[in-house]
Amino acid sequence: MIVSQNSKIDIFSNAVEALRDPLPQRVWSVIVSLFGDLAQHDGDHISGVALTEIAGLMGIRAEAIRVALHRLRKEGWVDSIREGRSSQHQLTQRGRKDTVSATPRIYARARTTTQHWNIVGASSDTGLEPVLREVTSAVELSRRFALIPSDDMDLPKDLMVFAITPKTVPHWMQSSVCPQDLADAALALEHALTQTNAMISAAGTFDPVQRAALRTLTVHRWRKIVLRIPNLPDMFFPPNWRGEACRDLTFDLLDQLPAPTLAELEASALQRR
Amino acid sequence: MIVSQNSKIDIFSNAVEALRDPLPQRVWSVIVSLFGDLAQHDGDHISGVALTEIAGLMGIRAEAIRVALHRLRKEGWVDSIREGRSSQHQLTQRGRKDTVSATPRIYARARTTTQHWNIVGASSDTGLEPVLREVTSAVELSRRFALIPSDDMDLPKDLMVFAITPKTVPHWMQSSVCPQDLADAALALEHALTQTNAMISAAGTFDPVQRAALRTLTVHRWRKIVLRIPNLPDMFFPPNWRGEACRDLTFDLLDQLPAPTLAELEASALQRR
Repeated sequence: MIVSQNSKIDIFSNAVEALRDPLPQRVWSVIVSLFGDLAQHDGDHISGVALTEIAGLMGIRAEAIRVALHRLRKEGWVDSIREGRSSQHQLTQRGRKDTVSATPRIYARARTTTQHWNIVGASSDTGLEPVLREVTSAVELSRRFALIPSDDMDLPKDLMVFAITPKTVPHWMQSSVCPQDLADAALALEHALTQTNAMISAAGTFDPVQRAALRTLTVHRWRKIVLRIPNLPDMFFPPNWRGEACRDLTFDLLDQLPAPTLAELEASALQRR
Repeated sequence: MIVSQNSKIDIFSNAVEALRDPLPQRVWSVIVSLFGDLAQHDGDHISGVALTEIAGLMGIRAEAIRVALHRLRKEGWVDSIREGRSSQHQLTQRGRKDTVSATPRIYARARTTTQHWNIVGASSDTGLEPVLREVTSAVELSRRFALIPSDDMDLPKDLMVFAITPKTVPHWMQSSVCPQDLADAALALEHALTQTNAMISAAGTFDPVQRAALRTLTVHRWRKIVLRIPNLPDMFFPPNWRGEACRDLTFDLLDQLPAPTLAELEASALQRR
C-alpha cells in the first residue's frame, strides 16, 4: 500500500495519541523503558540529541528529559558523558543489571505460569514482611499468609510451608491478585493497541526515531502491566482480565516496528534536526 | 495375687487421688462423662442413690451432684423422674444425641488422622467466623485462614479453597494447633494413668460402684483432652506431645475396669448404703 507523506504524519500522530498513557507519565520511567528496549547492552549509549528527538515525538519536552536524566543519574541508573555541546547517556552497571533481569518478563511472548505454588505462613509475632521483601514473586494474601512459587527454596525455617492445589479461587481473591486498577490498565491498553495496530498496518515504514518513539510508548505501557502480573495459574485471574490480549497485541505492534540500531537512530535524529 | 481388703481400699483411694483432675472440676461435666460411659443408650437411667455413691467415691458431695443435675436439667441434657424418696436420671434426647456423637472420638483406640486437608480463606470483609461455627473440625490459623478436612463439602461459595500437602510445620504452628495447656494436660494425665495402671494391676477386682468411679474419672480427663485434638497429621503436633501415650494408657486402664451393667451398679450402690 502506498501512503502519502502527509497521511503518514497523521497516522504517526494518531498512533502516538492512542498509545499515550491516560495516567500521568513519569518521564524517568519512560526513559528506563527506552533504554531497556534500545540500549540495554554493555557499551550501548544514546546521544542527548537522539533522546530529545524521540522524546519530542512522544510529546515530552527537552526540559523534562533533562530533569529525568538528572534524577536517574542521582539514583545510579544512568551515566552521562559530556562531549562538547552534546552528551552521551548510558545505563550504569546497576541500571543494566535491573534492566536485564526484567527483560525476560517484559518481552515474553507467552505468559509464564508457575504451576507449583506453596502457601506460606508466618507467626502473628513476625508477620510476612521480611519474606515478602526477599521473594519478589510472592503474592501477599494477608499480613501472615502469601503464595510463593514452590521452587523458591531459601525460606526462613520458621515459616509454615504447604504445597497447594487450588480448588476454588473466589472473586475477592482474583480481585486481590489482579486489582481493579491493573485490570483497568489492561483494558485501556488493549483498546489503544488495537487502534494502533490497525493504523500502523496501513502506514508502511516509519523512520528510526519514529519507530523508537512508538516502541517506547508501547513497551512502557506494557511493562507497567506485565511486571505486576503474578505467574499464577489462570483461575487466579478475573474472567474479564485482558492482560494476555495486551501481550499478543504488544508483540504484533513491536513486530511491525523493528527496533532501530543505535547507529540508525543517531543518523535519523541528526537528519531530523 | 491375693490382696487384703484393707490394702484394696488404700489402692482404691490412691487411684482416685492419682486420677483426680489437678484443675478445678465441673461436676456437671463429670456427670456428662459418667452418663456417656455407663448410660448413654435410650432407656438407660441411673438412680440418685447410685449417682451419689459413685460421686462420693470421687470425692464429690451429694449437694454438688444435686446442683449439677439441676443445671443439666435446665440446659436440657438430663431428665429426672422422682420415685417416692429417690429419683431416676437419664439423658434427654438432645443429651443422648451429643453424647453419642462424641463417643467415637472419645473411645477410639487409635488416633483418626485425616490425611487430606484444605486451607480455606475468607475475604478480609467477612472473615472466617461463619465457617468456623459450622465446621467443628476446622483448625483456625488466623482471622481469615483455617485448615478444614477436605471431605467437608458444604463450604460457602466465596471461600478460597486449596488442597494442601504440608512441607514445613514450624514450632509456632504446632503450638497453636496444640496449645501449651493441652500439652500440659496430656503430660499430667500420662503421669496419672501410669501411676494408676500400676496400682490397679495389683489390686484385683473392684465392686461395680468403684469401677464406675474410676472409669468416670479416667474417661472424664481423657475426654477433655481428646475432644481438643485435631485430626491433623503427626507433623502438626509438638515433638513432646503425649496425647497418644494417654490414649493407650486410658484404654489399658479401662480394660482392667470393665463397665458394670446398670443393674450391677444399682445393686452395688444399695449394698454400700
